[in-house]
Amino acid sequence: MLEQYGVIPVVTFRREEDALPMLGALCAGGLPVAEICFRTDCAKECIEAGRKAFPDMCIGAGTVLSGAQCADALAAGAQFIVSPGYSEEVALLCEERKVFYLPGCATPTEIMRALAAGLTTLKFFPANVYGGLSAIRALAAAFPQMRFVPTGGVSEETLAQYLAFDKIAAVGGSWLVKGTPADAEEAARRAVRIVHEVRG
Amino acid sequence: MLEQYGVIPVVTFRREEDALPMLGALCAGGLPVAEICFRTDCAKECIEAGRKAFPDMCIGAGTVLSGAQCADALAAGAQFIVSPGYSEEVALLCEERKVFYLPGCATPTEIMRALAAGLTTLKFFPANVYGGLSAIRALAAAFPQMRFVPTGGVSEETLAQYLAFDKIAAVGGSWLVKGTPADAEEAARRAVRIVHEVRG
Amino acid sequence: MLEQYGVIPVVTFRREEDALPMLGALCAGGLPVAEICFRTDCAKECIEAGRKAFPDMCIGAGTVLSGAQCADALAAGAQFIVSPGYSEEVALLCEERKVFYLPGCATPTEIMRALAAGLTTLKFFPANVYGGLSAIRALAAAFPQMRFVPTGGVSEETLAQYLAFDKIAAVGGSWLVKGTPADAEEAARRAVRIVHEVRG
Repeated sequence: MLEQYGVIPVVTFRREEDALPMLGALCAGGLPVAEICFRTDCAKECIEAGRKAFPDMCIGAGTVLSGAQCADALAAGAQFIVSPGYSEEVALLCEERKVFYLPGCATPTEIMRALAAGLTTLKFFPANVYGGLSAIRALAAAFPQMRFVPTGGVSEETLAQYLAFDKIAAVGGSWLVKGTPADAEEAARRAVRIVHEVRG
Repeated sequence: MLEQYGVIPVVTFRREEDALPMLGALCAGGLPVAEICFRTDCAKECIEAGRKAFPDMCIGAGTVLSGAQCADALAAGAQFIVSPGYSEEVALLCEERKVFYLPGCATPTEIMRALAAGLTTLKFFPANVYGGLSAIRALAAAFPQMRFVPTGGVSEETLAQYLAFDKIAAVGGSWLVKGTPADAEEAARRAVRIVHEVRG
Repeated sequence: MLEQYGVIPVVTFRREEDALPMLGALCAGGLPVAEICFRTDCAKECIEAGRKAFPDMCIGAGTVLSGAQCADALAAGAQFIVSPGYSEEVALLCEERKVFYLPGCATPTEIMRALAAGLTTLKFFPANVYGGLSAIRALAAAFPQMRFVPTGGVSEETLAQYLAFDKIAAVGGSWLVKGTPADAEEAARRAVRIVHEVRG
């Protein structure tokens, strides 16, 4: 479900009041999608506010570490769930609720377990630490049925080369939301342009 | 059981008719062993044909991801089973059938799980991505009972330095079977020479 | 419990008679802590002897791979247990005995499993192979509740930069005990000075 965007802005809000300006900026920049990380206490409120204010936006929850956090995120309206690693508990809950789950898998053993659970799109995190595109190429050769969402250390400069590989479903990035909402709107616009250039 | 060869050609056949010429070339080159990957639909037929045509060859199945695939591979006559990661299901089936199982393990946690299941030889894949020989040296220090089969990014140029480390049981390589059967015969001959030079 | 030392000497004794001189040297150097690896048969006796001779020293067992080894280590008086990877069996035994368990976790999936088991300090091993400090920074961003003990390839030269990152609980190192007891005493003294300089 994330393929259509190509790039997923990954954002951690320190304060609830930062959420709507930033999410609005992403929409204005042509990228109506965001992963809001459960790394701060206001994550749940930010998802709720975002879903209400921008009903056409696709808003998911990131850094979901447990079934309890997943239940919170779903109650807030999260449309997809992302974890840095694979959690059986979260996987089962997402399957039950028919919500897209994107767990991070870093090794062939972890990928095989996710495959056995029926998943075919996986986060690859931290992508730059684990060998970047060349690592994904090696893993994709052994798992032709899998598509990957590299996250961590990806930048506007490396976005195009990731997207050019057909096993990349999308790229996760926090670089898009580093500055002000105005910066994010511009960064989103440039990222969308790169997605269109590479994918046609 | 793979130590005696030192090098294991890893081959993915697109068409069943390619199998016998290539397997015959490896035998002619002095390397009567192959891992045939379950990455294509004809893998099962290739193993069956190879076993019948070259009864003295040691033919295993690679990229085995599930118990069902493992059962297929064993039914076709596979003499060993290789997985990119560790699968409990495959491990149990191989133990039951007394077939050598070589799963990929990339982290100390994965190695400990394999050790608890009684395995003492592990694939290390993708070897070049996960730090190559220096990674294997670090892991071998913590797991002196383990021997490794690095696969992925190994080449004729790096074969000798891998084999020189006594914790390397064998090296898996697709470089041997990249070209025509005639190329493979020559590559096998050169690889066998390197194995003899290093191991005496 | 290892934070107060900052550096944990990791030592493998070939002979039981080497233990007391080396442990005494570490105490004399101001670093009354050691992880004694279960990589040699005399590990249990070395822990027992060390605990008796140096009651104020903090002595743990390293390279603990199974519940049986853990029970042996605890019977010998080990005050903490270290594994290269995560073992559920060892984790349960340590929880039951209320002994600090420090397992190695290398991927986000492994970290999430440890977190679900209630652990908040993890070994990161082999640290240099898995990306060193930049890998720990990336993982710590996703797991703000976790603290790490990098081990493997750390040296006196890189100690300060590891310790400067507040998510580093301590650093494990075999460089301290490479030479004679007299060398170790000096190396311990220099390491303690670095810990004080960085942590104040």
